[in-house]
Amino acid sequence: MPVRQGRYTLLLPSMPGISGYAAVAGKKESEGPLGNAFDYIYEDGMAGKKSWEKAESVLHRDAVTRAISKAGISPEDADVIFAGDLLNQCTGTTFGIRELGIPFAGVYGACSTMALSMAMASVWVDGKVCNTAVASTSSHFCSAEKQFRMPLEYGGQRTPTAQWTVTGAGAAVITQKDCGAKIEKVIIGRIQDYGIKDPNNMGAAMAPAACRTIADFLTDTNTQPSDYDMILTGDLGSVGSELLCELMVKQENIDISSVHEDCGLMIFDIVRQKDTGAGGSGCGCSGAVVCSDILSRIENGELKRVLFVGTGALMSGVSSLQSESIPAVAHGVLLTGG
Amino acid sequence: MPVRQGRYTLLLPSMPGISGYAAVAGKKESEGPLGNAFDYIYEDGMAGKKSWEKAESVLHRDAVTRAISKAGISPEDADVIFAGDLLNQCTGTTFGIRELGIPFAGVYGACSTMALSMAMASVWVDGKVCNTAVASTSSHFCSAEKQFRMPLEYGGQRTPTAQWTVTGAGAAVITQKDCGAKIEKVIIGRIQDYGIKDPNNMGAAMAPAACRTIADFLTDTNTQPSDYDMILTGDLGSVGSELLCELMVKQENIDISSVHEDCGLMIFDIVRQKDTGAGGSGCGCSGAVVCSDILSRIENGELKRVLFVGTGALMSGVSSLQSESIPAVAHGVLLTGG
Repeated sequence: MPVRQGRYTLLLPSMPGISGYAAVAGKKESEGPLGNAFDYIYEDGMAGKKSWEKAESVLHRDAVTRAISKAGISPEDADVIFAGDLLNQCTGTTFGIRELGIPFAGVYGACSTMALSMAMASVWVDGKVCNTAVASTSSHFCSAEKQFRMPLEYGGQRTPTAQWTVTGAGAAVITQKDCGAKIEKVIIGRIQDYGIKDPNNMGAAMAPAACRTIADFLTDTNTQPSDYDMILTGDLGSVGSELLCELMVKQENIDISSVHEDCGLMIFDIVRQKDTGAGGSGCGCSGAVVCSDILSRIENGELKRVLFVGTGALMSGVSSLQSESIPAVAHGVLLTGG
Repeated sequence: MPVRQGRYTLLLPSMPGISGYAAVAGKKESEGPLGNAFDYIYEDGMAGKKSWEKAESVLHRDAVTRAISKAGISPEDADVIFAGDLLNQCTGTTFGIRELGIPFAGVYGACSTMALSMAMASVWVDGKVCNTAVASTSSHFCSAEKQFRMPLEYGGQRTPTAQWTVTGAGAAVITQKDCGAKIEKVIIGRIQDYGIKDPNNMGAAMAPAACRTIADFLTDTNTQPSDYDMILTGDLGSVGSELLCELMVKQENIDISSVHEDCGLMIFDIVRQKDTGAGGSGCGCSGAVVCSDILSRIENGELKRVLFVGTGALMSGVSSLQSESIPAVAHGVLLTGG
């Protein structure tokens, strides 16, 4: 049963295990540093479908199905799926999983969705609300670009602070079993809004939320950055990552720079893959990175304690056009090894 | 700690109490049968703001703030808020609650959001994951119409099966205290898709999901319709309600007609308020109905056992244009009196 530690953090005494996980991704992601880590690469961005949205649903379903299969169970054995994505009304998720017949609790956390869904799932498993819960998310460069920015055909120039939405999906099966990777603690974030209005600079909008959640977590647990092998943010990119490390020092007097990594900077090599701008973004970015490289390095003992903090910018195309600033939220999950 | 009853239902032995609830609504809603039940009426659909989206956020925040205040607490006392809405990227919610500083777990269930957020909140409270959780949602006729259908200025004719999106918001504070209204059981629904493609006939798309969840709940709990004072669906409207009662008989051999009510038919008098078509819809419909009339009738003993089943159509404007059918989901919450 989850136990509150400090004001915001939840300790999960049973340490729910991740019995299966999977990530699928697109061509550009396969050419990045983690190219070999993914379970399947979709060379065709349409995934054989007639629209990018339908393709995203294919990727989402594929990640979920693979994770369930790798956990050695079938969809009927899953008690609940916590899932969401970036598309309007979360259709990447709903059209992806509709045939699976798993009770569906939709979540929305923008690019923090993987952390939010893992947090929800692990709290239910630790509380013995269910035996087996799935957490998943997805994004697609083309469906996101079309929805949030410009028609792709327009070929508009991108600002250097802009991030590249990852085409990919990640899923994890969380159970009461003892597994090589576990979820030990979770923290649900509070919305932060520092007045950033540039939708081409999400990293800057999200850094304060990551800062808030990391600082709350470290305070609640009475730990410091050196107690973790990695504090992994889920897609601040290069601009946001730099801002986060600065904010942590100036505002919280905590230096995380020696253990900080960012999913958006892991999935693309922004020097070599120049068009990816400040790095990867999108729900599928942290979804695909955590559910491949990170969890496998935890399982094989290379990483022992990873504080994964998913970050989400809670704006829409309409709110930006109405000159609203960009509120952001960050949710944290402490992933630990055997 | 929640205990599974049957395959899909969760029994909450501590019976989390609803210590505060509030509903705010617009002018047309104030002219309906429940006009006097709401905490506040916004005669101005813009709520003094420059856009309908900003107005929706005002309503959302107002409902949450009033519910918290009626519970006799302040926002800092709330451990988490489960909330969502219909707008792209759930901005009705995020811009509404961003200043409150409550840890925010976004949920997405389209018009089933009130039931989903109450389910999430009560499971956490029953599992002692937190002391106090807020559940809330909102919708706005103009922001929804603009997003999903036609520019309002176009003045297009509405089909008779179309429902009228409610301008309103509802919020409930759920705690470990003993209260006049409690949450005794919850069920998370499975997506159903019967191939309905008409976005002007959401009731028909959602009826199968309501049927599935109600039948699962009755089977799991070994109860029958007569064990409830009311089986309340959250906005099937007249077309969907008729279909639901038919489906329940034909498919499940269960007659719910004597206890069935629908939030969409309670909030508007579709005979007198002709332009509301088949009845109310939108997240705010069941949000406002449950967090006013229903909970107060439970508190005063008029209703003892209400199975509230929120129904959501999981489509988007894009999925409809791409000729997709409309998947739907329904989540249930058993509300009981003292």
